[in-house]
Amino acid sequence: MKYSELFAKSTKDAPKDEVSINAQLLLRGGFIDKLMAGSFSLLPLGFRVVKKIEAIIREEINKTGGQEVLMPLLHPKSLWNETGRWETAKDVMYQLKKDDHEYALSFTHEEIFLDLVRKHTQSFRDYPVKLYHFSTKFRDELRAKSGILRGREFLMKDLYSLHADQKGFEKYYWEVADAYKKIFKRLGLEVIVTEAAGGVFTKNVTHEFQVLSETGEDEIIYCEGGDFSQNTEIAKVKEGKKCDLGHGPLKKAKSIEVGNIFGFGQEYCKKMNVSFTNDKGEKVYPYFGSYGIGLTRAMGTIAEVHHDDKGIIWPESVAPYQVYLVGLNSKADEVYQKIEKEGIEVLFDDRDVSAGEKFKDADLIGIPVRLVVSDKTGEKIEFKKRTEEKTELLSLDAAISRIS
Amino acid sequence: MKYSELFAKSTKDAPKDEVSINAQLLLRGGFIDKLMAGSFSLLPLGFRVVKKIEAIIREEINKTGGQEVLMPLLHPKSLWNETGRWETAKDVMYQLKKDDHEYALSFTHEEIFLDLVRKHTQSFRDYPVKLYHFSTKFRDELRAKSGILRGREFLMKDLYSLHADQKGFEKYYWEVADAYKKIFKRLGLEVIVTEAAGGVFTKNVTHEFQVLSETGEDEIIYCEGGDFSQNTEIAKVKEGKKCDLGHGPLKKAKSIEVGNIFGFGQEYCKKMNVSFTNDKGEKVYPYFGSYGIGLTRAMGTIAEVHHDDKGIIWPESVAPYQVYLVGLNSKADEVYQKIEKEGIEVLFDDRDVSAGEKFKDADLIGIPVRLVVSDKTGEKIEFKKRTEEKTELLSLDAAISRIS
Repeated sequence: MKYSELFAKSTKDAPKDEVSINAQLLLRGGFIDKLMAGSFSLLPLGFRVVKKIEAIIREEINKTGGQEVLMPLLHPKSLWNETGRWETAKDVMYQLKKDDHEYALSFTHEEIFLDLVRKHTQSFRDYPVKLYHFSTKFRDELRAKSGILRGREFLMKDLYSLHADQKGFEKYYWEVADAYKKIFKRLGLEVIVTEAAGGVFTKNVTHEFQVLSETGEDEIIYCEGGDFSQNTEIAKVKEGKKCDLGHGPLKKAKSIEVGNIFGFGQEYCKKMNVSFTNDKGEKVYPYFGSYGIGLTRAMGTIAEVHHDDKGIIWPESVAPYQVYLVGLNSKADEVYQKIEKEGIEVLFDDRDVSAGEKFKDADLIGIPVRLVVSDKTGEKIEFKKRTEEKTELLSLDAAISRIS
Repeated sequence: MKYSELFAKSTKDAPKDEVSINAQLLLRGGFIDKLMAGSFSLLPLGFRVVKKIEAIIREEINKTGGQEVLMPLLHPKSLWNETGRWETAKDVMYQLKKDDHEYALSFTHEEIFLDLVRKHTQSFRDYPVKLYHFSTKFRDELRAKSGILRGREFLMKDLYSLHADQKGFEKYYWEVADAYKKIFKRLGLEVIVTEAAGGVFTKNVTHEFQVLSETGEDEIIYCEGGDFSQNTEIAKVKEGKKCDLGHGPLKKAKSIEVGNIFGFGQEYCKKMNVSFTNDKGEKVYPYFGSYGIGLTRAMGTIAEVHHDDKGIIWPESVAPYQVYLVGLNSKADEVYQKIEKEGIEVLFDDRDVSAGEKFKDADLIGIPVRLVVSDKTGEKIEFKKRTEEKTELLSLDAAISRIS
């Protein structure tokens, strides 16, 4: 892609009311655009990042046996009444009325999933059920101030599972936890699995996947040895205490919740009369779990933890392009075509602006490798990683083999 | 995928109020589930079909230079007021109020696109702009009765373009028309490009891509020679008249609109003050077009035109799987694994049900190739195309090379 033709170039200023680093960098880099408080468009660059995040999540969730579907976003009031959440989640839920029908926008999909399952399962042979989708969530968050970390409208992968017994549920719950660890590792995020409260979802203890960050709206007390972490909203221990394994004193820190997993037991299934007949002919309510990862929030978190004062530093796995090619003479176009032909994803800065401006944008946009073609580099190409200061002069072939 | 593990098996009965063939077949086959009038979940089988449709559209639109983005679904009233459509489209638009803010759900995205562009373009060098996304549309249709053909919530690919002059717009308009013809051909749909009215979108003449079908809610008058077609809502000629090229008498027929392209001139840009400075330093309003294809409607239309009395007959390009493997003995599992290993998408009917039931479901679900492994077939495998009655006995290798 030629940068001259890419929609939405970098800008010097982000909206003043967007104070978080992730929003500043993503807005200035041309990854996202703000429609209104808590609502952003994904521009071509940001869309590519989110698609890569999506592909990684899909791959790992498919491995757990999850089957991909797509559930609607506009929901009939009647389903939300079955669990009582039409009332209990009213604050966060967008509700509307048209022609005497009342609807809610998807702030989550538990009710829709359970309605789907009760229509399509009868026997114990139909269990377990593991369905997920990538879809839009709407939440009227009062504090929509952390850039793309807490949106009023955002993209989420939500997975729902139903199991014939508690044991089967628990096994899958921890299997998903493992899949989440793999996903976040591939996204370049170090997560701390943290016990937390379930909010409008459940009274049970749940698990959050927390990334340490000063921007985070959460606060956790955790052991650096990795065997203890609780959200301060439920923690009874205090900072400084030793964990049970004697690692060192517990620490308190701000963090961003990038994923969560919930166990609901049989409660929702009882409320919505989701049941099956077991091999003894008895009616049984299945055990229910739900598992979420915010895609746009993941992108924001990556920007939040992987940046320097010049801009974003994308991990290779989610970078919008593999190479940022700075063209400073007429030979650059030929190099661009050769690199593209190799199947390498390249953003070619072919604009009629100064070298300095191009270098600045290369740093801001944060693509892992920067190549420079100029009269100075002669037949060679300057190769530089975004993570390093060092530059090298390489032949085109050598540069290509370093990248692919 | 083992059919025993696939979520949502075939069912004998579809909801009684769904009378259209597409809804009957897609519901009975386990492709979709009905949440409420005009709103459907995509089940794993249907999701796979829609993803294949999406990939074909993406490929062809990318070739026209379209750049993929994602725009929000919840829109501030203020933007809809700029064009006046908050009032003029009130009937079809879902509007809501929360905490003193008023919103509309995306019944289309012209206003959002133009708002995005006016923030990110200044100069003639930024033109043309060609952005598209796959996203959800909400339309409160009175006649939500044609199954998945006319939903209240549905998936659409919508492309928007802005051009510095009318000539540039027209060139791209017909380029997209050509891309649409390629897309529909790949989807197995024969389209008739038809002049039509623009509804709440524009007073200009627009073009629809119509597929002949008795289920269609549209009616067109067209020449079989291919040089004339008008939607009867604007047609002044009558059935029976000869077209200007003298092909034969014009025909009248019911049809399904699977895509449309609109030219808006400068009207919307003037209303929303989207402009640029040309090379003479003058303020110019660009020329605007929008181009839609309903993904879920495309799936419904394919089912509507490609079926027989036993079920759907998917074109290879969009079939959920390439092979339906009917296993009737213990050797089938080994064959399944070998076929999967070849990278062939296979749905393996491993259920403990009669051969007759499996054959029936193979026909209903409509995967292009049916393979049978049974004691009768011995070392060989029975090969049958969904489009043919003829069966053949082949070695596994021969069967695989026929498919891949």
